[in-house]
Amino acid sequence: MADKPSIPKGTRDFSPLEMARRTYIFDSIRRIFKVHGYLPIETPAMENLSSLMGKYGDEGDKLLFKILNSGDFKAKIRPDELAELPAGRLGTMISEKGLRYDLTVPFARFVVQHRNEITFPFKRYQIQPVWRADRPQRGRYREFYQCDVDVIGSDALLNEFELIQIIDEVFEALGLQVVIQLNNRKVLAGIAEAIGAPERMSDITVAMDKLEKIGLEGVLAELEQRGLGLAAREQLNPLLKMEGSTTEKFAFLEEYLAGSETGLEGLDEVRSLFDYTESDPLGALMEFDLTLARGLSYYTGSIIEVKSAEMSMGSICGGGRYDDLTGIFGMVGVSGVGVSFGADRIYDVLLQLERFPERGALDTRLLFVNFGEREVRHILPILGRLRKNNIASELYPDQAKMKKQLNYADKRNIPFVALVGEQEIADGVVTLKEMETGKQERLAPEELIERLSSA
Amino acid sequence: MADKPSIPKGTRDFSPLEMARRTYIFDSIRRIFKVHGYLPIETPAMENLSSLMGKYGDEGDKLLFKILNSGDFKAKIRPDELAELPAGRLGTMISEKGLRYDLTVPFARFVVQHRNEITFPFKRYQIQPVWRADRPQRGRYREFYQCDVDVIGSDALLNEFELIQIIDEVFEALGLQVVIQLNNRKVLAGIAEAIGAPERMSDITVAMDKLEKIGLEGVLAELEQRGLGLAAREQLNPLLKMEGSTTEKFAFLEEYLAGSETGLEGLDEVRSLFDYTESDPLGALMEFDLTLARGLSYYTGSIIEVKSAEMSMGSICGGGRYDDLTGIFGMVGVSGVGVSFGADRIYDVLLQLERFPERGALDTRLLFVNFGEREVRHILPILGRLRKNNIASELYPDQAKMKKQLNYADKRNIPFVALVGEQEIADGVVTLKEMETGKQERLAPEELIERLSSA
Repeated sequence: MADKPSIPKGTRDFSPLEMARRTYIFDSIRRIFKVHGYLPIETPAMENLSSLMGKYGDEGDKLLFKILNSGDFKAKIRPDELAELPAGRLGTMISEKGLRYDLTVPFARFVVQHRNEITFPFKRYQIQPVWRADRPQRGRYREFYQCDVDVIGSDALLNEFELIQIIDEVFEALGLQVVIQLNNRKVLAGIAEAIGAPERMSDITVAMDKLEKIGLEGVLAELEQRGLGLAAREQLNPLLKMEGSTTEKFAFLEEYLAGSETGLEGLDEVRSLFDYTESDPLGALMEFDLTLARGLSYYTGSIIEVKSAEMSMGSICGGGRYDDLTGIFGMVGVSGVGVSFGADRIYDVLLQLERFPERGALDTRLLFVNFGEREVRHILPILGRLRKNNIASELYPDQAKMKKQLNYADKRNIPFVALVGEQEIADGVVTLKEMETGKQERLAPEELIERLSSA
Repeated sequence: MADKPSIPKGTRDFSPLEMARRTYIFDSIRRIFKVHGYLPIETPAMENLSSLMGKYGDEGDKLLFKILNSGDFKAKIRPDELAELPAGRLGTMISEKGLRYDLTVPFARFVVQHRNEITFPFKRYQIQPVWRADRPQRGRYREFYQCDVDVIGSDALLNEFELIQIIDEVFEALGLQVVIQLNNRKVLAGIAEAIGAPERMSDITVAMDKLEKIGLEGVLAELEQRGLGLAAREQLNPLLKMEGSTTEKFAFLEEYLAGSETGLEGLDEVRSLFDYTESDPLGALMEFDLTLARGLSYYTGSIIEVKSAEMSMGSICGGGRYDDLTGIFGMVGVSGVGVSFGADRIYDVLLQLERFPERGALDTRLLFVNFGEREVRHILPILGRLRKNNIASELYPDQAKMKKQLNYADKRNIPFVALVGEQEIADGVVTLKEMETGKQERLAPEELIERLSSA
């Protein structure tokens, strides 16, 4: 007797109900992407390991799933190498492929590889799973879908604005209220310049990120610990105290960043995005948030993050501009901007707020009870007509006990059952029973179609 | 300078055009599955290697992609083992996971693992990629999608008939004419019994499969070579000569198989399926084909195969009944039947016969030319209205030369461009230009929406 089967830790099976909900999310997102003219691509699950290694830092390299070479993977490796090389080194000698870790690096690879077939600016979306050998924990999986939308080959801020519109429209379609937080790496660099510590941008941002949690004094203490001089800390003080409306913040920063060309450029970018929303207002709230420091190691301009306005759940979507994505594959100077929707967290928000639609349009509406071969032959053409009218219908395949068949309808949440016995055949009708009320009607096939099309 | 990036051999990138075509296929198939009440599931790309090994024969084991264990995969293996064990053995010691090889074994694993949550009969479909370390060649890939539909937990022939209806409706939806070929393993076993060589079924089928290619004499010669006695060969002779309509074939076999209970049972099953088509006729041609011997090692009853009636392309869909699928995971006596659609071959057929629809409903319909910031601000709210009306529209993000912007529209096959300059802003209109004809119209925003909704 075999053991009860299982799946690798950190991976998941998706049941029909989970699939219906996930499909609802992906379809909503995809529809908005498409109406904005974004085009789908897919890339293979496996990339050459050389395309992946070194792209996500040392930590990332360790989290790559490597595919063992097929056939005699040890053939070209000396016994002493097998015995003595550390696992990391040996791993790359016996594996030349790895599972994709995100959709960004494969996208960059795709763009460079197909540069001559692509029309730029290239607006693409991609919805596929990625794999990370992370320690599994609540809400963190080793296989999960990413849902990325990027435009590459244009540095216009209109692209950022379009992505913000897409975010706004996606969450409106899903019935979720969100806050879109905006920052700009150039503003952060400008702050570091303004206080005379241009090389300390990342220390400053890491500390500022904790402002809400540890307060002004806490941030300043941390910066002291990180070795930021007194003068710099004092110059930072008024910034940390900055309050007021977005317009007031802009006015303050205009002055604060006066000495930093980069900073003013970043400020101008943020302001332009707010200006665009005046031409075509968003449904969601957009906030300028200086403490937002997502992806500072790769974003070069705008930084975008989205949170639920209705519950606490961390980031459910985010992204930014990267000025040299394809540089890693030798194609330099191509600017891009993109955001990624966190399907798993959006799923959790919809579930907790009970915002999933009750049922899909094509859930089975009707089950014909199976009374035997003669009845089946009478039912088959009616069933065909129902399906042609897009009414998802089933015939119980076995001539089982009535109770068992009704139990199936009940468990599957099928709202109607149809009974066709000798009398119904003689009269050319179907007895339709509504499961919830028990109410029965005798209907001709065309009436049945009409009844179920509108029900 | 990095090398030009590439992807592992046998894998593919899918461009937006290919994606549109593949999505068309999958959506058509999915719609038919759903209207028949089948439910979607997804399983992880990685399964425990123990779930996969031994399920596909020795050859199959070699074609599994193994995932190298994370971290120090060598830690528990002695140096002499590393040096001396053959790659196959060592591979299973340093890999505990593998990529799924098909959707059938993961489905069996899913059913057993979730047996208490599932309502039987369980009608499921699954559309996901699978991976095989096969030698890549034309039309054979190392990563490809399977598109499976199965019902498990019912041995009624109505399930087979429903799958045949699904096949018929899918190919009708795709605009392809097909032949559905039907056979039954029990009939093949009955033939072997009838000629007094019950243990030689597989030899007989392998030879009969070549009937069209090598002719009657060829088949008999091959059977002699395989050691089938003269008496048995002589008894087979009339069967190989069998001709006539399906009804005539049934009559012939009724007599031929008279001594074999199994054979008659199989014949009865085939006949019942043809009988069902009299209650609800198929669009496609269905043929009873004794030489069809697909998947004899696992199918136990009906065998189904589908070919294009318009071009030569091998099987584009196939399947059958398996009486003990979940037995491999310790849950015995559960009968199932299923078919799998070959998306890649269907793609090739549609492409060669030029049956793909010209364009998707949401391809970009309109590009606004970007003349500058002032015009952009005027355009943004119009763009928003178009998109709300599901008219996929874009605004060129950069204020580039007119020629470049029109070139983008041309390359992207966008049929209309909109020009909004000072005069248009003053008059509250948009100049719409049809790319193909060059024809221009001046339209108010609401007229623009109407024009593009119907165009």
